[in-house]
Amino acid sequence: MVVCAFIRMSRRSVVNLVRLGTRAVSLLKGSSLRPFHTSVRTASSQPNAGFKPGKVAVVTKTTRYEFEQQRYLYAGLSEEDLKQLLAMKGSSYSGLLERHTIHTNNVEHIVKSLRREGIEVRVVKRGEYDEEVVRWADAIISAGGDGTMLLVASKVLSKDKPVVGVNTDPERSEGHLCLPVRYTRAFPEALEKLCRGEFRWLWRQRIRVHLEGTGINPISVDLHEQQLSLEQHSQAHRITTMDSQQRTGMLHDSFSKTSLLPIRSLNEIFIGESLSSRASYYEISVDDGPWEKQKSSGLSICTGTGSKAWSYNINKLAEQAVEEVLKIGKSQTGLDIPLNRDIIEMVTDEYNESLVFSPDDRRLFYSIREPIVNRVFSSSRQRGFASRVSVRSRCWDACMVVDGGTSFEFNDGAIATISMSEEDQLRTVVLEH
Amino acid sequence: MVVCAFIRMSRRSVVNLVRLGTRAVSLLKGSSLRPFHTSVRTASSQPNAGFKPGKVAVVTKTTRYEFEQQRYLYAGLSEEDLKQLLAMKGSSYSGLLERHTIHTNNVEHIVKSLRREGIEVRVVKRGEYDEEVVRWADAIISAGGDGTMLLVASKVLSKDKPVVGVNTDPERSEGHLCLPVRYTRAFPEALEKLCRGEFRWLWRQRIRVHLEGTGINPISVDLHEQQLSLEQHSQAHRITTMDSQQRTGMLHDSFSKTSLLPIRSLNEIFIGESLSSRASYYEISVDDGPWEKQKSSGLSICTGTGSKAWSYNINKLAEQAVEEVLKIGKSQTGLDIPLNRDIIEMVTDEYNESLVFSPDDRRLFYSIREPIVNRVFSSSRQRGFASRVSVRSRCWDACMVVDGGTSFEFNDGAIATISMSEEDQLRTVVLEH
Repeated sequence: MVVCAFIRMSRRSVVNLVRLGTRAVSLLKGSSLRPFHTSVRTASSQPNAGFKPGKVAVVTKTTRYEFEQQRYLYAGLSEEDLKQLLAMKGSSYSGLLERHTIHTNNVEHIVKSLRREGIEVRVVKRGEYDEEVVRWADAIISAGGDGTMLLVASKVLSKDKPVVGVNTDPERSEGHLCLPVRYTRAFPEALEKLCRGEFRWLWRQRIRVHLEGTGINPISVDLHEQQLSLEQHSQAHRITTMDSQQRTGMLHDSFSKTSLLPIRSLNEIFIGESLSSRASYYEISVDDGPWEKQKSSGLSICTGTGSKAWSYNINKLAEQAVEEVLKIGKSQTGLDIPLNRDIIEMVTDEYNESLVFSPDDRRLFYSIREPIVNRVFSSSRQRGFASRVSVRSRCWDACMVVDGGTSFEFNDGAIATISMSEEDQLRTVVLEH
Repeated sequence: MVVCAFIRMSRRSVVNLVRLGTRAVSLLKGSSLRPFHTSVRTASSQPNAGFKPGKVAVVTKTTRYEFEQQRYLYAGLSEEDLKQLLAMKGSSYSGLLERHTIHTNNVEHIVKSLRREGIEVRVVKRGEYDEEVVRWADAIISAGGDGTMLLVASKVLSKDKPVVGVNTDPERSEGHLCLPVRYTRAFPEALEKLCRGEFRWLWRQRIRVHLEGTGINPISVDLHEQQLSLEQHSQAHRITTMDSQQRTGMLHDSFSKTSLLPIRSLNEIFIGESLSSRASYYEISVDDGPWEKQKSSGLSICTGTGSKAWSYNINKLAEQAVEEVLKIGKSQTGLDIPLNRDIIEMVTDEYNESLVFSPDDRRLFYSIREPIVNRVFSSSRQRGFASRVSVRSRCWDACMVVDGGTSFEFNDGAIATISMSEEDQLRTVVLEH
């Protein structure tokens, strides 16, 4: 008997159903690790009306020159002393000053271009950037590198506020979260395109974290703001913990209610021991699956945006390794596999490209860094996609680091649940060619 | 014209010449990454006269139970409070106590076996173990896991003092530096074999480090002794630096003479930012080659012994990755490569086994962990063998960690030269079957 039914579905459900179908086909083909690229154009990528914000905040990075200057001025040293000190370390004072000048010139270029269009501009150093600036602005420009973009995004919790990154030092910064480098010195062109609607919105999916259990502390530490040393990092954690413990009493600071942390991760969440040389112990459950005890160098859970960042570096293979695998494969199978430089390069590139997936993808990608697999510990899958990952800390002095910049204590007994939600998107811009 | 000459050579030179030959053949065959296994038996592996030390020091680890007890007793908590606290964190008090009992029973078994043979025994906790104990003992037994073995080795700078590791908790500890697990409860058998000469000496080559340049501090911090948190770690570094600076004056603490550090690494030297989430910047020169600027998650330089430890975890591939490489190789070449579970497992195993080399090998193995290769940074080789590696720090708050246990400050301007010398060997035992 055939039954015909009309089912009411939202556009997003239809999109997801198509995705599921594509994924099923993909899985059947056996390439479960490949990201799937949906050919269904989502609402976010259709052509737009022009965008011309009335008020723009330009958030600028702190250059290394400014940083060293502040650091040594604080110690009571003169500019001349700074030069000497840098020289002794093999660093170049004039090099730092040059990069600083390039950055400040580029910022000026951006600001002038905006003002020429009658846009009200507020230039804000990273230290002064806060929720008030976000509320004031119609759009926010990050003037720096990817780190500055991550900082800017960290205070934008709404999915409606546009954020645009401009790479102010293309020679030093990769800038993959920023506009193409040609717009750095030709910013009016970028403004023109925005005005004319020759761009599309890209809603970058971000990660949210729920924290519960013992040993948690919902107060974070900012790693970038003061370029904290390890000591200051832990001290900062300890102070916030002590405050928290004094208020609740130590033995009774047991199962705290689940808190949704006030952060949204644009790149990744990294969980592991704070001390880089110490192994991390934890338990992990993927998509509500069984808990698995693991020992490793840490766990990375990234977004599509972050799949080009730290996660990429954790998982990518060097040609050297790919060549060795293919050679062994060749000798094991006895087949005459051609192993010239080109083939090795192509296989390496294809492998590494498969690690990258779309910023608007609703999935997380988890990677276990340097899993320690032996008689005692095991690991079913080293990495994969998921909707949800739960981690229980068995660590001594660990942290959960958001986008390499904000750190939460995550010690023995704490449980983090990592997931995504549509409302956590960040509205960014992709300029059409 | 043929010239015949008799050349006087030491046995070791002959061995090295054969090795060079074997290596040259190996390189010509194109498998430069494979370790070479010399078939020439070195002096260290010939049968021996029996070994029966008069005085043996047994160095014991601190069990997790003892550790938690000390930690909470210090906080003024009772045993009952300890139980509760552990339960709240999801840990098991009875579990910890059980493992503690297993360890102490095994230590007792070892000590009794030794005394029954008329050997004078001194049982020393890790906190009490020092150079005086090393001088007193004819041989040292490490009673714990691999960590305890590394600690024991760290204070033995002579290549003549035998060190033997016994794994006192085989269910929890990998023990790859220890005797096979069957000897843990059958220690008299091991003693019997030692007595009868049914064993061979294995001289494990270790690493030495020279430090020079600005920002160095030859005083180290012990990571294990107090299970230091990040804060304590950096605080300890800072205190030793301040002492040093007060003595020499800050601006004039410039190019210090090269110091040979009083440590010999049995597993590896790890160089990188102390904070696990921060990228490391440095310059590296291999075998006096050109300096290369790099950005990565750190650098590991290991011995043959250490090639099964952290370095192994950095470089090994999961079946998941090998499968993907072979699949892509298959699709790129169009060849019908069989990709069943067995083949993938065999290729993975062979690849991973090639990362391990002999503990008495005179070479270092360097690995760049998660190299960041982009428009700005490059990396010629991700890993390889060398006789010598020099590293110049461009880090903010980095350290050089020896065997995961001893940490030296290694900041911007410091230069470390890592090499091996015959006198740095550690005398250990391999029991024959």
